[in-house]
Amino acid sequence: MTEYWEKAEFPFHAIPKLATLGLAGSTTKGYGCPGLSVTASAISIAEVARVDASCSTFILVHSSLAMSTIALCGSEAQKQKYLPSLAQLKTVGCWALTEPDYGSDASALKTSATKVPGGWQLDGQKRWIGNSTFADVLVILARNADTKQLNGFIVKKGAPGLKATKIQNKIGLRMVQNGDILLNKVFVPEEDRLTGINSFQDISKVLAMSRIMVAWQPIGISMGVYDMCHRYLQERKQFGAPLAAFQLNQEKLVRMLGNIQAMVLVGWRLCKLYESGKMTPGHASLGKAWISSKSREVVSLGRELLGGNGILADFLVAKAFCDLEPIFTYEGTYDINALVTGREITGIASFKPAALAKARL
Amino acid sequence: MTEYWEKAEFPFHAIPKLATLGLAGSTTKGYGCPGLSVTASAISIAEVARVDASCSTFILVHSSLAMSTIALCGSEAQKQKYLPSLAQLKTVGCWALTEPDYGSDASALKTSATKVPGGWQLDGQKRWIGNSTFADVLVILARNADTKQLNGFIVKKGAPGLKATKIQNKIGLRMVQNGDILLNKVFVPEEDRLTGINSFQDISKVLAMSRIMVAWQPIGISMGVYDMCHRYLQERKQFGAPLAAFQLNQEKLVRMLGNIQAMVLVGWRLCKLYESGKMTPGHASLGKAWISSKSREVVSLGRELLGGNGILADFLVAKAFCDLEPIFTYEGTYDINALVTGREITGIASFKPAALAKARL
Amino acid sequence: MTEYWEKAEFPFHAIPKLATLGLAGSTTKGYGCPGLSVTASAISIAEVARVDASCSTFILVHSSLAMSTIALCGSEAQKQKYLPSLAQLKTVGCWALTEPDYGSDASALKTSATKVPGGWQLDGQKRWIGNSTFADVLVILARNADTKQLNGFIVKKGAPGLKATKIQNKIGLRMVQNGDILLNKVFVPEEDRLTGINSFQDISKVLAMSRIMVAWQPIGISMGVYDMCHRYLQERKQFGAPLAAFQLNQEKLVRMLGNIQAMVLVGWRLCKLYESGKMTPGHASLGKAWISSKSREVVSLGRELLGGNGILADFLVAKAFCDLEPIFTYEGTYDINALVTGREITGIASFKPAALAKARL
Amino acid sequence: MTEYWEKAEFPFHAIPKLATLGLAGSTTKGYGCPGLSVTASAISIAEVARVDASCSTFILVHSSLAMSTIALCGSEAQKQKYLPSLAQLKTVGCWALTEPDYGSDASALKTSATKVPGGWQLDGQKRWIGNSTFADVLVILARNADTKQLNGFIVKKGAPGLKATKIQNKIGLRMVQNGDILLNKVFVPEEDRLTGINSFQDISKVLAMSRIMVAWQPIGISMGVYDMCHRYLQERKQFGAPLAAFQLNQEKLVRMLGNIQAMVLVGWRLCKLYESGKMTPGHASLGKAWISSKSREVVSLGRELLGGNGILADFLVAKAFCDLEPIFTYEGTYDINALVTGREITGIASFKPAALAKARL
Repeated sequence: MTEYWEKAEFPFHAIPKLATLGLAGSTTKGYGCPGLSVTASAISIAEVARVDASCSTFILVHSSLAMSTIALCGSEAQKQKYLPSLAQLKTVGCWALTEPDYGSDASALKTSATKVPGGWQLDGQKRWIGNSTFADVLVILARNADTKQLNGFIVKKGAPGLKATKIQNKIGLRMVQNGDILLNKVFVPEEDRLTGINSFQDISKVLAMSRIMVAWQPIGISMGVYDMCHRYLQERKQFGAPLAAFQLNQEKLVRMLGNIQAMVLVGWRLCKLYESGKMTPGHASLGKAWISSKSREVVSLGRELLGGNGILADFLVAKAFCDLEPIFTYEGTYDINALVTGREITGIASFKPAALAKARL
Repeated sequence: MTEYWEKAEFPFHAIPKLATLGLAGSTTKGYGCPGLSVTASAISIAEVARVDASCSTFILVHSSLAMSTIALCGSEAQKQKYLPSLAQLKTVGCWALTEPDYGSDASALKTSATKVPGGWQLDGQKRWIGNSTFADVLVILARNADTKQLNGFIVKKGAPGLKATKIQNKIGLRMVQNGDILLNKVFVPEEDRLTGINSFQDISKVLAMSRIMVAWQPIGISMGVYDMCHRYLQERKQFGAPLAAFQLNQEKLVRMLGNIQAMVLVGWRLCKLYESGKMTPGHASLGKAWISSKSREVVSLGRELLGGNGILADFLVAKAFCDLEPIFTYEGTYDINALVTGREITGIASFKPAALAKARL
Repeated sequence: MTEYWEKAEFPFHAIPKLATLGLAGSTTKGYGCPGLSVTASAISIAEVARVDASCSTFILVHSSLAMSTIALCGSEAQKQKYLPSLAQLKTVGCWALTEPDYGSDASALKTSATKVPGGWQLDGQKRWIGNSTFADVLVILARNADTKQLNGFIVKKGAPGLKATKIQNKIGLRMVQNGDILLNKVFVPEEDRLTGINSFQDISKVLAMSRIMVAWQPIGISMGVYDMCHRYLQERKQFGAPLAAFQLNQEKLVRMLGNIQAMVLVGWRLCKLYESGKMTPGHASLGKAWISSKSREVVSLGRELLGGNGILADFLVAKAFCDLEPIFTYEGTYDINALVTGREITGIASFKPAALAKARL
Repeated sequence: MTEYWEKAEFPFHAIPKLATLGLAGSTTKGYGCPGLSVTASAISIAEVARVDASCSTFILVHSSLAMSTIALCGSEAQKQKYLPSLAQLKTVGCWALTEPDYGSDASALKTSATKVPGGWQLDGQKRWIGNSTFADVLVILARNADTKQLNGFIVKKGAPGLKATKIQNKIGLRMVQNGDILLNKVFVPEEDRLTGINSFQDISKVLAMSRIMVAWQPIGISMGVYDMCHRYLQERKQFGAPLAAFQLNQEKLVRMLGNIQAMVLVGWRLCKLYESGKMTPGHASLGKAWISSKSREVVSLGRELLGGNGILADFLVAKAFCDLEPIFTYEGTYDINALVTGREITGIASFKPAALAKARL
């Protein structure tokens, strides 16, 4: 995959192979979806990320965001119409929430949905939308011009007024095609409104599970990096001995392993909490934040252990080092997830600085 | 307990209360011992450490080292003679391996056991031996002058030639009385030799379980620190708001919580591995090393969160901050445990520096 | 000094020796004071801290806080009356700003100064006041009941209504006697009001220089720890080789040295900025915060390098490890100093959380 | 430059502009070289790195390695022949020491130089050689087949038997063209042997100064990242306030600034030590290791502060984040430089593990 990563292109030829993994629509039951448990689904995502993080992100966007939203917030007709094809990766989905000016503060989005005869008109911009440059099915979130609440819509590739421009020059997850989306009077027929989305609250169940899946990406990435380092230290010699014989290298490898076993356990616990109906937003946020921050330490140590070869994508570790960065930041930056957790354990929201409160009055 | 900690005295009055916890000889079955599972025992130790780390160390030395050695390596007669009284804390045990010149390199110990008519003569020095200044039953490990292998002996308080001097000026676990032991021609009758110890290998089963218990001490300490910080941040105000309302404080509290949940899971997994007979030395070493290093981060953050009150033992956090340090170092320093793990995962021992190998030739 | 540290007593017998160092009133010219440069004074403080941090704090409180305030904000008569004796340590000074409820938020203090015939009446509480349990001369800061602005007063030992209680159970700087002060209708004659203090701004010049001196304490502490570790690693053997021969130990020692050289340079630069009249509050805050945070890393590494002996105050490192903690927190915690710097470089104050702003409206 | 970085191509069009900076052959006097002080040269390199790290590496390879070697170890004729053109960047130089199997252990290199009539024959491989795919003048280091000592040679572009293949898929310093060099019976006329190189010791003066220059690259990179973050935090808003108003962001920015000021001072001190003839190898190694490790913290914080835009090379920070990694590793990895310093301060070399010593006997 190195070649595609280097060129920042999506490996379309890999889609059939990814389809055989049976991960699209992973936890959805029926509609041609695999109906896996959350735990099974999460572990599978980690195994994909272990080999290539971009591929795991491609699947997550398609499955845990686009398909999950249709499955959880769509009508029976919408599910039957869209899910089977998406489940086989015959069509590809994307999911558009973030906007140029609303990243961490996503719920303040500006894209508008105005009622027009026979449907809705969407206007606004979206940013960072994965898969959007080639997706067949775009789930778009917008603010209802009347109710001021969140609504959701299914937009199809090539819809008039829809334009997605590839974001260039990414250092990580280069194979994932993130787009800047422009919505200029895009018409959506009434039948393509996702009637289950009437407020931001309605997508929180989508985000909750998605955050678990995202938390397992750094686990997979870290395991892949560990695998490579463990092998490399045995094979590469310096000063006449395998690198594995040096105290400084052993301690790094051990620190990586200690973090990884803890990450796996934290991720597994998160799945179990979800499956037993006890997972709170704080649990998910803490899990994602903590796991991704430990993973950052792991990939950084791995980068060091590979020396010069640690800066070549060919050796996997360098690629993983870069791929982790967007994951550390998306679906809630480390800080935002920490503050979500902080609010839950203290009862006090501290997202906004004092300056803001003053400014608004 | 602050008073005893400050004065570096053992709270003898607390022994009856500690006895009611039923943790002495925790995992031993019979002989008046509670026969708990390893998991139950470990969690109990953490709960004691959550309140006071010195008390948990007192119990561990008595139970997981002294009593376990008698239970696992003693004769039936020895078990019947010593365990019931130790289980009720009517007598107190200690366990002596470390020597002034052999800490990390404990297996190279010099204390000798020489066969004499009717028993054995012990000569040498021991250092850091917890409870030794007042223990009734001292388990002493020594090198058999003939076989050069490790042997074990039960020595009783007041034995001629035995002298234990309290180590002064400790910054942590101040209530625990560590002694410098002098053995000058101490006679041990044949019946008090622990016949199950004929090599260093024979005490590894004692050390394996003990290391699990030690790994749970930092978990308990960290939970106690979190409890206090969580409360303090709600109660203490600065700039007109509870400290819990500040972003910088919330992030610290969340980082503590993330580490603690991971520590608990890693500790729990260690217990399960042990109980299913799959725990290797590397597992135990990695668990102890990783957990104690994360705990160091937790108590350091907690110390900060309490500001000035974070340097007063009264507020628990300062005491915990200091108590963790000896635990970070005993039963294998972080580095030694990392290298034990490193040996297991790479197949290469890297304890000794090149200089040594040269020097020996 | 270990004995005094252990007992948390001040080594009064050392005062004559400390007097011979000629550091009391260090940068003050005239009045029997040495008139050193800021750089010379700072380096001297570091050299004292290198041996014992408590002694350096004793001097700082006496000299950089109490004497400096008299020298900078006192009348000619007050300088002539108090400074010569303080300069020879025949009398000892202390300085009281912090209150039980106002630590980081010190400028909000509540202690009141009410005009009464012939002088002033002071009422309120102070906390953490170093040297206060035995000081002859207490500089007290209080809020003028009329102007609501800060005023300063010289109170003498034994003044009716003045009570200082020693704060017990400190884990660090144990020899320093911090007191909880109660001011109950303490009368101060007009001649003992420090006429140069009419607002919080007026003591900022005292705090600015004091913060430089405080920044040099962790430098001295770190150098002392490095000295001890460097020696210990050469002398102590394990596995048949000096500890200095192990990669893991060398890397730690080198990391300590790298931090120390940087700390010295940052501290030195701070002095030069001050001496050239260019030092801003942000410079001082950043210097103190950055240096003390690096020092925390240094003493923590040192503690590890000494293994078991790293928890005994006898070996200096353990003592230094504990002594650093109050310094990390006093004269502005790390966070407060970071936010002072943050305000200077961004133009935005972020001390208060949003919750506060809300709460006040 | 983002475009060239993205495509991993060297911006040849920029060479004339780089030439106008007057940094080629910076510290060399005469031969058309600028004759700058080491301090001036180092600061200039940092300023280039502040804008683009690849450009600074291009200059360093050309100037501090290739030109310095000719200036310090070449004959008068060689200096006159090569330096003037190199000084104007009319010709470009590279410098080949590292080999595929000898990175950290560079002095063990295998490439051989065999005396043949009229000159020398070079055989072997080199790896990671910057600029080598297009350099006009290649300085090649090889082991004299007779003396077994190090020798140096000037090889010209297109020499028969010389082949340089571009190393693909780098994550950092992508514009720098590193080559894998194959030397197959490459003939070098006697006049192109650098007669000043007769042992590894002879190039240590080149490496010493080069290491200073390399140490200033992370300083420049960090300053560039700080510049961008400082601006970004003021401009970008979330939750209705500039990012600069958030405590968590301010603390990160302040931590970056604290590290940067320390890095500058450490780098500056290194220059002054060199200029006064007092710089040891340990000084240079510690400087490079410490500075680059702090810079790693800085760019990582910067990456976070830019959120999603922190993964786009367009915003400079992401590029800097990646560019630092090869610098952290080249001219001695962090660990190797730490051990070089460790050897100097302890008198004990700990590069080789015990296993090696055993294996060799």
